[in-house]
Amino acid sequence: MRSLVIHSAKDLRIEDHPVDAVGPNQVLVRIERGGICGSDLHYFNHGGFGAVKLREPMILGHEVSGRVTHLGEAVTSLQVGDLVAVSPSRPCGHCRYCQEGKQNHCLNMRFYGSAMPFPHIQGAFREELVADASQCVVANGLSAGEAAVAEPLAVCLHAVRQAGEILGKKVLVTGSGPIGVLCVLAARRAGAAEIVVTDITDQTLGHATKAGANRIINTAFDRDAMSAYSADKGYFDVHLECSGAPTALASGIAAMRPKGVVVQLGMGGDMTVPVQAITVKELSLKGSFRFHEEFETAVRLMQGGLIDVKPLITHTLPIEQAQAAFYLASDRTQAMKVQIEMA
Amino acid sequence: MRSLVIHSAKDLRIEDHPVDAVGPNQVLVRIERGGICGSDLHYFNHGGFGAVKLREPMILGHEVSGRVTHLGEAVTSLQVGDLVAVSPSRPCGHCRYCQEGKQNHCLNMRFYGSAMPFPHIQGAFREELVADASQCVVANGLSAGEAAVAEPLAVCLHAVRQAGEILGKKVLVTGSGPIGVLCVLAARRAGAAEIVVTDITDQTLGHATKAGANRIINTAFDRDAMSAYSADKGYFDVHLECSGAPTALASGIAAMRPKGVVVQLGMGGDMTVPVQAITVKELSLKGSFRFHEEFETAVRLMQGGLIDVKPLITHTLPIEQAQAAFYLASDRTQAMKVQIEMA
Amino acid sequence: MRSLVIHSAKDLRIEDHPVDAVGPNQVLVRIERGGICGSDLHYFNHGGFGAVKLREPMILGHEVSGRVTHLGEAVTSLQVGDLVAVSPSRPCGHCRYCQEGKQNHCLNMRFYGSAMPFPHIQGAFREELVADASQCVVANGLSAGEAAVAEPLAVCLHAVRQAGEILGKKVLVTGSGPIGVLCVLAARRAGAAEIVVTDITDQTLGHATKAGANRIINTAFDRDAMSAYSADKGYFDVHLECSGAPTALASGIAAMRPKGVVVQLGMGGDMTVPVQAITVKELSLKGSFRFHEEFETAVRLMQGGLIDVKPLITHTLPIEQAQAAFYLASDRTQAMKVQIEMA
Amino acid sequence: MRSLVIHSAKDLRIEDHPVDAVGPNQVLVRIERGGICGSDLHYFNHGGFGAVKLREPMILGHEVSGRVTHLGEAVTSLQVGDLVAVSPSRPCGHCRYCQEGKQNHCLNMRFYGSAMPFPHIQGAFREELVADASQCVVANGLSAGEAAVAEPLAVCLHAVRQAGEILGKKVLVTGSGPIGVLCVLAARRAGAAEIVVTDITDQTLGHATKAGANRIINTAFDRDAMSAYSADKGYFDVHLECSGAPTALASGIAAMRPKGVVVQLGMGGDMTVPVQAITVKELSLKGSFRFHEEFETAVRLMQGGLIDVKPLITHTLPIEQAQAAFYLASDRTQAMKVQIEMA
Repeated sequence: MRSLVIHSAKDLRIEDHPVDAVGPNQVLVRIERGGICGSDLHYFNHGGFGAVKLREPMILGHEVSGRVTHLGEAVTSLQVGDLVAVSPSRPCGHCRYCQEGKQNHCLNMRFYGSAMPFPHIQGAFREELVADASQCVVANGLSAGEAAVAEPLAVCLHAVRQAGEILGKKVLVTGSGPIGVLCVLAARRAGAAEIVVTDITDQTLGHATKAGANRIINTAFDRDAMSAYSADKGYFDVHLECSGAPTALASGIAAMRPKGVVVQLGMGGDMTVPVQAITVKELSLKGSFRFHEEFETAVRLMQGGLIDVKPLITHTLPIEQAQAAFYLASDRTQAMKVQIEMA
Repeated sequence: MRSLVIHSAKDLRIEDHPVDAVGPNQVLVRIERGGICGSDLHYFNHGGFGAVKLREPMILGHEVSGRVTHLGEAVTSLQVGDLVAVSPSRPCGHCRYCQEGKQNHCLNMRFYGSAMPFPHIQGAFREELVADASQCVVANGLSAGEAAVAEPLAVCLHAVRQAGEILGKKVLVTGSGPIGVLCVLAARRAGAAEIVVTDITDQTLGHATKAGANRIINTAFDRDAMSAYSADKGYFDVHLECSGAPTALASGIAAMRPKGVVVQLGMGGDMTVPVQAITVKELSLKGSFRFHEEFETAVRLMQGGLIDVKPLITHTLPIEQAQAAFYLASDRTQAMKVQIEMA
Repeated sequence: MRSLVIHSAKDLRIEDHPVDAVGPNQVLVRIERGGICGSDLHYFNHGGFGAVKLREPMILGHEVSGRVTHLGEAVTSLQVGDLVAVSPSRPCGHCRYCQEGKQNHCLNMRFYGSAMPFPHIQGAFREELVADASQCVVANGLSAGEAAVAEPLAVCLHAVRQAGEILGKKVLVTGSGPIGVLCVLAARRAGAAEIVVTDITDQTLGHATKAGANRIINTAFDRDAMSAYSADKGYFDVHLECSGAPTALASGIAAMRPKGVVVQLGMGGDMTVPVQAITVKELSLKGSFRFHEEFETAVRLMQGGLIDVKPLITHTLPIEQAQAAFYLASDRTQAMKVQIEMA
Repeated sequence: MRSLVIHSAKDLRIEDHPVDAVGPNQVLVRIERGGICGSDLHYFNHGGFGAVKLREPMILGHEVSGRVTHLGEAVTSLQVGDLVAVSPSRPCGHCRYCQEGKQNHCLNMRFYGSAMPFPHIQGAFREELVADASQCVVANGLSAGEAAVAEPLAVCLHAVRQAGEILGKKVLVTGSGPIGVLCVLAARRAGAAEIVVTDITDQTLGHATKAGANRIINTAFDRDAMSAYSADKGYFDVHLECSGAPTALASGIAAMRPKGVVVQLGMGGDMTVPVQAITVKELSLKGSFRFHEEFETAVRLMQGGLIDVKPLITHTLPIEQAQAAFYLASDRTQAMKVQIEMA
């Protein structure tokens, strides 16, 4: 079977690997779609990010869906032919954090396509994937493309849950890439009354509008728009920071009402933060990292017609054009979510 | 009546002012003790801090207690002779935040001894103070010195409440000045099972031990002690950051368990923060600013023998030695809480 | 001007009253629509409920909307011609609960059309209403009928907020009258993934389906349907109990997962409750009473097209047919929300 | 080895059983103390309670401590000679609730000395107990008697955690048996400012006073004392209901402030509850059932000198007098906590 292997920056190869054996409580999934995520792009463009560096070849990918083609022993929750969204999150279930119900903080996490431990955790951009039945959520009724969006949608549902109460609230989203736009959808689904989105690219902001944002601000051109929200100690109840940019975080902190919640999903490193404003306005700056039960929730909300991710999937390319797909996904003026047709 | 007026850095004068008239729902209080706070020291040593600058002479002080000597019309909650702790917090009661029960974020706050608005809000270091009856909490049974600690204790009770659950938890306190030590007392009262305190001065750390800290670390000398707490993603459930030092905040973030809560009370300006660790461990960095209902709680807990602040009050000087008192309070190797005998 | 006055059970009269004077910060509103609520029906059919009994004639009504026709002194937030939803909730703003931000628990509440204090609080079913500007939320863009639904919708938004997290959750609603159906809309808006509604009348359940319920159960006929939800300690995360019937509460408790939240909005008196199941499954049974800031939220969500209440308004009758309107509203097989055209 | 076996009401026998084999990750514990709990008394006096009935002989007991005498394979967390408190709670670790961190709701729980499943779960009143190392918390420094109180203390710490914020709050405890008195200690440790305890027996109330209650009320004689707390919508923030008596629950509900939290630990069956008061005051009635991580917390707080349970242990009898111990424990005018010296 073919898989997409990154060797170093810009060196992405289609390689043949044998298919793994299907053990008990496992299934074989013929992968149909794989969505390219920001971390995949970091490996592709730079060979990693921060301290996370490629040290050996690694199959990329963690946003995948496919059809079940074979059931291992003792599998009763799935049937051959089911369309499944496959969760890339594989916590151990036994460590202290798993037992506390914080599986996304598992001490022994094996998340698809991660160069953080060594040997690296191989990813899911491949034609045939052996997965635990417990990783697979039946997504019948959705398209394979939608099912492959379950993963980034789960990230955003998890982030919205960190924010606490959303119903009737005013929400700021900074960064309008796929995560930002999915946060718009998730915040709207959770009842946000008003959603303002900022970015520095008109094209991505256009997607925010399509997703239901009440206002978009291109902060590259309209530098003063945000400052109006700082009057009387601030305007927003919730800030979902999806860009990782220090200026986005700082502008949000200035625009938050006292006791507001800033959720930081965007990955930045060390950055300068106006901590005194956090203190004086008693804001909560909360991290949000991956997801757990929200993966199934994402599928259910899409199946119920409660969240529609289809407009986000701007491009779908066959595996043979994987390299082009990665270049396309790197261009924010062209693409929102790019998916690869695996088989 | 005499009062303590700051004109500019190091220019502290004892001045005579007429006593204000006592209106309805007000009382006259003969002030007995006034505690010197960090912000008083900033005005005294530097004429202000950050954007907060003296622009006119201002009576200092906001940690005071005294005896009620005269009741204005319609006052029924107090009696002449009562020892009262006087809250320096005077929210308007009408603005949007007051009506939401967030009085510490009042848009029209008049907090004693603050140079932030202009004209400045005059403080309470004076022999005679006219206060609203609603500002005065009866503190009979306490010493005047203890009653004057109600204010900083309220700050710390408020901070501990921001942390959420404390019972049985592991708590880190960074900064062992009066606020840090009162946080130790407050966290212990709230059920902390283990309290570790860091500072860079042995003398202040000694007070933390007396207050019940399980371990103290002088990070000026023992630079590696904190790093042991970072194993397996971290150790502490709660971090009460009282120093305002970026290194203290960063060391705490590294030592927190996933989903832990960092409460930032210490006043710093913009600072470099390891935001990625906040994201990946899903920490909550929460500001804590002043207090509201905790002022009365502080008095009740002291009266009930549930918190003992007496060991903190290291020096009490008469008003005539006010300048010496301020120099003494500025020396962390000598003094913890310095109070002035007003009358 | 005309108003609708209840004298005793079944004795509803159209009476002429002089229009009140418009004071500072007040406006005159020409009332367009008034919705009949369950408590109005209790006064009409029984002269009261429980300990709440009519002791003097009282103008009914607290779900009203109208046009601003005159501005009192100092009103800047409204303009003549504005369509406004008028909140019937008039907390004092000064008592301990108001100052804690719990205005719905005000010690001096004057809620329109309530026989609880004596003299009774006169209601809003009248042609001309003098209201505080702060009671009026601009509802331009909505129909007068929709604007008059702001009040019961606010009740349901408040109830959903008591439930905590809704996004992706499984929700049971018992009782499918106007409050139950508005709870379906509110829970869906807040992100419920699955909503099951029970009642004993097919007609009201039909409205639940139109509002988006995933399943309806007529428990008068299908007595066993609920018991299937009790397997493995229960199924639902949230129960919104809108009926006030002990059997509905008990059936919900049996069907809740451990740690689930039951919100009791339906008014019942003392009733037999399976308390041991609450203990053993660690459920939270939470009361929900009226609303405060949710009144404005209700208008905003309707204006934003995020909640559509129009299908609920089944009948609109002119004031001259008020008596018929009350009889109609009392018949659950005929009517959902009945509104009176006031002017 | 000897064990205490209940055959039917009043038929308690000392029997000889072989010692189980010590498997990997297990230890052999020579039991020193076993505390008699209310459920043990129900089996002894009535052969069960409610639907829970003895159907076969069962070793009683779940509050035990002892010395480790033998280590099974792979045990590293314990040493021979350690005094350990042994948790009677044995969740499976794999079911949906365990994986959500709600181990006390495990679908496959094997809690010592429970007649609920059949075959029954045998208890821990025996001379030699084979336990999983993970059940054993090192309690060195405590007496064996104190260590055996870890279990009921854990129940109370868990209950106090359900109540949310306690620091500075006013707490009502109804029922002053061992659980009620341990709740007084736990609530005080968590920062309660004022604790009022009710019961119908002066002797048990005397223990509440010793534990630090601010006021005790014998409601058998002073029937009106509680009603004073209902003025202005109520007085208490938190109610810990430990009696299971409907009148205790109702009196607490009447005395709660709006938004207060009532924690129901006491086991009652179906009972009449003033549900309308819960609705109108928006109270939260929350169940609390057993514990999980609080078992270790209980040991740590006792070891740190932060909770002192010694005064509760009123009687310690040798195993040969087990029957007398059960009669004594049944007499609330004589005994608080009765423990059996197992070996």
